[in-house]
Amino acid sequence: MSVTTVRYLEDLTVGDTFTSPSHELAAEQIIDYAKAFDPQPFHTDADAAQDTFFAGLAASGWHTASITMKLLVESLPVAHGIIGAGGEIWWPAPTRPGDILHVESTIAEITPSRSKPQGMMQVEALTKTQDGEVRQRLVANLVVPRRSQHTPEVAS
Amino acid sequence: MSVTTVRYLEDLTVGDTFTSPSHELAAEQIIDYAKAFDPQPFHTDADAAQDTFFAGLAASGWHTASITMKLLVESLPVAHGIIGAGGEIWWPAPTRPGDILHVESTIAEITPSRSKPQGMMQVEALTKTQDGEVRQRLVANLVVPRRSQHTPEVAS
Repeated sequence: MSVTTVRYLEDLTVGDTFTSPSHELAAEQIIDYAKAFDPQPFHTDADAAQDTFFAGLAASGWHTASITMKLLVESLPVAHGIIGAGGEIWWPAPTRPGDILHVESTIAEITPSRSKPQGMMQVEALTKTQDGEVRQRLVANLVVPRRSQHTPEVAS
Repeated sequence: MSVTTVRYLEDLTVGDTFTSPSHELAAEQIIDYAKAFDPQPFHTDADAAQDTFFAGLAASGWHTASITMKLLVESLPVAHGIIGAGGEIWWPAPTRPGDILHVESTIAEITPSRSKPQGMMQVEALTKTQDGEVRQRLVANLVVPRRSQHTPEVAS
């Protein structure tokens, strides 16, 4: 199956892996995101960032998460879209200007609903640099429809 | 202490609570964020969103998370800024156009480092609407410096 083939719950298997395209992160993107959503000096000002915890400009973790979502939309072929109920997130190292990010996703669990034509799918998504360094680990819980019905319902 | 008083690890206590200012979410913000980071029809197109899981335009969960971060920056008085190592996130209901969001944060745990002049602080942050409905629950793990040293180090 190609990445663009839509998949329902029946078409997905624990252990399936997906690799996203790449996203190159420039300082301007880090600053623009941070001014809107995380206006702290280590995310908005390369000079001021030198004397902080990060010792230089670093992307907001939520910016890394946002880019990860874009890359998941481009790489996870789930029918009717990627609908998250939540998850766990870790930022083992800050994302920096010049990092070229991609996401490697693996299906960790699939739990069909007992009452609805859908299921929950747990995906581990590692956001890595061009050198393979992990900048974010996300374990996300997604709602995935069965083929038998086209629009899943809110609670599973 | 006022919200703007800087606090070090010694100044913070389990059970301390903080309430953020408000952020009113308009459809244009939802669409702008989604075009950049979560380009799926239920986040980018109010008409197309009608026939989806969300039955109408809904904000990306990562947009809700991003707004939550902005509101945390405005309300958590941690010395040297809010530096997250990760956490757990849940979206029990989608954020909608017209929602006026604020964040209510409670310190859940404080764990001083044995080797460094800092500690980890776990904060539960509930992102609520003007009607008190919870749109996001975040349990975040933050790095907080002790007063004795001004710049924390990366690992605790």
